[in-house]
Amino acid sequence: MYRQLRQLFIGRPLHNRELTAEHLPKWKALSIFSSDALSSVGYGPEQIAITLAVPGLLLYGYIGYVAAAILVLLAIVTLSYVQVSRANPGGGGSYAIAKNTIGEFPALVAAAALFADYTLTVAVSVSSGTEALISAFPNLIGSEVTIDLLVLFGILMFVNLRGVRESSNVFVLPTYLFVLSMFVLIFTGAYQAFTGTVPVIPANSAAKQPFDLMVLALLLRAFASGCSSMTGIEAISNGVPMFQKPQAENAIKTTFFMAGMLGIMLTGTTFLILHNHILPQENVTMLSLLAEETFGRGWMYYFLQIATMLVLYLAANTSYNGLPLLLSILARDGYMPRYLGIRGERLSFSNGIILLSVFAGALIAGFSGNVEHLISLYAIGVFLSFTIAQTALVVHWQRERGAKWRMRAIINAFGAVITGLVVLIITVTKFIYGAWVILLFIPCMIYIFKAIKQHYADMAEQLHLSLDEWQSLEQAPVGKNIIVVPVSSPTSVVVQTMRYAHSISKDIIALHVTTDKELGRKVEEKWKVWDPGVQLKTIYSPYRLVISPIIHFIEKLRKNKAPDDFITILIPEFETKKWWHRFLHNQTGWILRTLLILKEDVVVTTIPYHLKK
Amino acid sequence: MYRQLRQLFIGRPLHNRELTAEHLPKWKALSIFSSDALSSVGYGPEQIAITLAVPGLLLYGYIGYVAAAILVLLAIVTLSYVQVSRANPGGGGSYAIAKNTIGEFPALVAAAALFADYTLTVAVSVSSGTEALISAFPNLIGSEVTIDLLVLFGILMFVNLRGVRESSNVFVLPTYLFVLSMFVLIFTGAYQAFTGTVPVIPANSAAKQPFDLMVLALLLRAFASGCSSMTGIEAISNGVPMFQKPQAENAIKTTFFMAGMLGIMLTGTTFLILHNHILPQENVTMLSLLAEETFGRGWMYYFLQIATMLVLYLAANTSYNGLPLLLSILARDGYMPRYLGIRGERLSFSNGIILLSVFAGALIAGFSGNVEHLISLYAIGVFLSFTIAQTALVVHWQRERGAKWRMRAIINAFGAVITGLVVLIITVTKFIYGAWVILLFIPCMIYIFKAIKQHYADMAEQLHLSLDEWQSLEQAPVGKNIIVVPVSSPTSVVVQTMRYAHSISKDIIALHVTTDKELGRKVEEKWKVWDPGVQLKTIYSPYRLVISPIIHFIEKLRKNKAPDDFITILIPEFETKKWWHRFLHNQTGWILRTLLILKEDVVVTTIPYHLKK
Repeated sequence: MYRQLRQLFIGRPLHNRELTAEHLPKWKALSIFSSDALSSVGYGPEQIAITLAVPGLLLYGYIGYVAAAILVLLAIVTLSYVQVSRANPGGGGSYAIAKNTIGEFPALVAAAALFADYTLTVAVSVSSGTEALISAFPNLIGSEVTIDLLVLFGILMFVNLRGVRESSNVFVLPTYLFVLSMFVLIFTGAYQAFTGTVPVIPANSAAKQPFDLMVLALLLRAFASGCSSMTGIEAISNGVPMFQKPQAENAIKTTFFMAGMLGIMLTGTTFLILHNHILPQENVTMLSLLAEETFGRGWMYYFLQIATMLVLYLAANTSYNGLPLLLSILARDGYMPRYLGIRGERLSFSNGIILLSVFAGALIAGFSGNVEHLISLYAIGVFLSFTIAQTALVVHWQRERGAKWRMRAIINAFGAVITGLVVLIITVTKFIYGAWVILLFIPCMIYIFKAIKQHYADMAEQLHLSLDEWQSLEQAPVGKNIIVVPVSSPTSVVVQTMRYAHSISKDIIALHVTTDKELGRKVEEKWKVWDPGVQLKTIYSPYRLVISPIIHFIEKLRKNKAPDDFITILIPEFETKKWWHRFLHNQTGWILRTLLILKEDVVVTTIPYHLKK
Repeated sequence: MYRQLRQLFIGRPLHNRELTAEHLPKWKALSIFSSDALSSVGYGPEQIAITLAVPGLLLYGYIGYVAAAILVLLAIVTLSYVQVSRANPGGGGSYAIAKNTIGEFPALVAAAALFADYTLTVAVSVSSGTEALISAFPNLIGSEVTIDLLVLFGILMFVNLRGVRESSNVFVLPTYLFVLSMFVLIFTGAYQAFTGTVPVIPANSAAKQPFDLMVLALLLRAFASGCSSMTGIEAISNGVPMFQKPQAENAIKTTFFMAGMLGIMLTGTTFLILHNHILPQENVTMLSLLAEETFGRGWMYYFLQIATMLVLYLAANTSYNGLPLLLSILARDGYMPRYLGIRGERLSFSNGIILLSVFAGALIAGFSGNVEHLISLYAIGVFLSFTIAQTALVVHWQRERGAKWRMRAIINAFGAVITGLVVLIITVTKFIYGAWVILLFIPCMIYIFKAIKQHYADMAEQLHLSLDEWQSLEQAPVGKNIIVVPVSSPTSVVVQTMRYAHSISKDIIALHVTTDKELGRKVEEKWKVWDPGVQLKTIYSPYRLVISPIIHFIEKLRKNKAPDDFITILIPEFETKKWWHRFLHNQTGWILRTLLILKEDVVVTTIPYHLKK
């Protein structure tokens, strides 16, 4: 029944041969890989405005400048990542590139940063999606975390456990609907702005106090927050193998197209924010305010909100394609537990999917689904992995020395410097707002990666056996096998156990622990009459303990035995007819098994005994 | 370290020979056995008043009548229980007496009633003790349940796990202090009443509306509630063996003395309630109101409250002497799991003590420590076991036909009729207030008792073996022992396991499950080179499952083997050097063990392998 329920929800097991490579056309690949990047419009510009629309300061006028800086950064990062697609046609993110070029340590830094980043993508995207929903339906206020967790565990985890392929078709419509409705919003808004009676940029949106050091600090912080708009831009370069041929060319074209759309949406959104002088509000997103300003609360408004919600939830899904794969690569390299590298029944990396869901769920619950706080942790990991990838590429081009290698190396070097600078800016301006968590997390993760690797290496070394060693071990004499049979009284269970004991060894000790001398004597007498050919050893336990005398006895045996001898303890296990009958038997057997199973040279053997009634 | 901590809290283990019978002088026995009965003054009279002081009705004047009825009942029950002490010098409550005279079924009814009763005694006494505390210190209001649970688990369970003897000295002082301060209260109150200017019984305390059917119904309900004053009266008759000789005589004298004190305290308290026209109040007990009325909020007031609290907490303790002992007798008779009949390290019945604490804790938490609601469940069980004990005694006297047997039989028959009538009254008047729970609980418990007994009987029958059967089984031929060794790749673990396999059987199958045909072929080739003298069987698992192919393989083996053959599966178990290393290994071994351990004729053997690093 468990199996049937499981099949109903997760689907039938998939055969190894069903793991075939898919080759997506550009229009479909765009929708699959770009939901993360494009959906950032849902929270990115808002993050800039939140930092700059501070009451008492006149910084609103600087919003446009910060947005422009973000656009420039977007162009640089896009150009850099076009190179990644070209250099790395096999796919694989910063970790893989760095590992092949600049070494283990930066690769592990990238892996740790990506780990944080993927998890945060899920948390931020799900929370933002729910905020879009809440903005449209304010009577849901208060249930944010519940909705977040339902989406996370009920939909995302679930769909991904069923397998990646089935989820991929789900992507296409929401992404294009979102892009479409955003373009309608921007076009309608711009038309209204330029044909309306109010000034295109009202005076209060242009107001800015003189530039000084404090303003600079705030602008840098706004810039750091705005950088979250750029997360997900690397997705295409990781998915090159999924494109139709020529793969690299198609991937590059798609990257440019995506960056272009993102640029237009960022520009448009920022323009409309300025035109309408939108101020941050509790429980309503800026995009919602913009849409209301532009369309009124009509069907177009609800359409945009729902599309935003869907695309944000789908953006969370990109992590489900990314992190479990990264974890499986790390597992194969020995940096993560092996079982993260194994595909489940449905060919998805089930363990990684569950791990990601649990971590993201913890983040959402811990931060009560508050996007602003989560974003402070966010961008630093992204840009750290950008920087490492660019640096690795510089080494790559230099090593390959292919066509135009100098130019390519220069582009990536420039990208590395710029993104490195962004890491610095985020670190400094966001340190006390949460960036320190990531800066603590990364070294911890690297320590864990290395400790795991070390353990596997130690283990392989200990398990390894050369042919010579094998043969010499095989010819070494095998010692005695001393069997210990705990006996409570002579019953048919003891007969069964004794029969097995006789079949595997000549050295058998029957051991009886009694808490009552009188009863002990009776068992001994009965034993003599029955005479099973084995001496009964009786231990009197005046403190009424049963398990520790047995353990002590076995410890003593271990001390006196020859090095090649084994000690085997036979423990009978009752299989009761009804489940609740188990509670009527004490758990001595189970406790003995647990305590003895880890003792060197002690073999624990369980003899089943089936009760028929 | 676990052992040291345990010894610090629970004390050193006690030797069997330290279980010696104690013989208590009357004054000490009185304090030990009477705390339950005497402390009932803390809530009994209040329960009458709560039912009768209903706004809109004039029933206050009837309080005295109900109290008088309770006193008469007390006299009858006392006389009856004096007979119990005489008939049953070996101790043992209603269950033991009924079992020896009127048969299994009434004995089990009594056992179930006592089970409910002991648990409720703990819940009611602890809650009432806390109410006495709260009355004196109102700023503790709101923490009642927390205090209840702290007392229950932190003190009562704890002291009793350390052992009965140490707790017995704790009883003496609080019981006598409580009796002393109650007598001071009653004497002072009465003196003030008779020398004061206000009338001894004010008019509003004497007011009563004409007697009719509705009044009768309410009076019966008040009587039913008031019967809770009489709980614990049977304690002495259960403890006869703990008295100094002549045991029965001393026990009887003590019973009379206790009943006398209880009668005086009940009379006095009721008189003072009437004199002061005390009305029930939220969060303050009537005893507290009386004490405040009489002494003011001086030291005497606080002294009485603390003494009341202590004696109530100690009353809860009588259940810790009673229920675990009853459970151990039931366990010995096969009606409860055997391990409830085993004395722990400190000679106390640890499992029963923990069980009682958990049940009482659940009741307190479930009823939020509300005494009034708990009391509705309470008295019915007590009086049911009273009735059964009296009935059993009638049979006992008739069977023995000793001196004055007719008179004794008549006294107990009368007692049985009266207490039976009380059961009826409580059932009818309290049915919807909770008595139904007990009436449902008792048959359920009887069903459980019988099911357990049946299981043990079935098991004994199956395990039993005559000498002939033993010998014929011993001479029967032992079949083959087919060893299955799951192999992932040829390593030193496999060598160790193979060595053990060779030492116990000639029929060995090495089993390799591969999820990748290529890897499987490699393992097979390596196996051929190493040539350990055992054929390797490779199973390809295209759905990437490892455990179910092994289970299927063993199922197939089981179907084809001869009936006398065993199948032994050898599972290697890694003992890692650091605890967290365990998480780096998948739990295949553990899962296999769990799934196979219950299969008939399949022996599961665990070979330890110690990682040195």
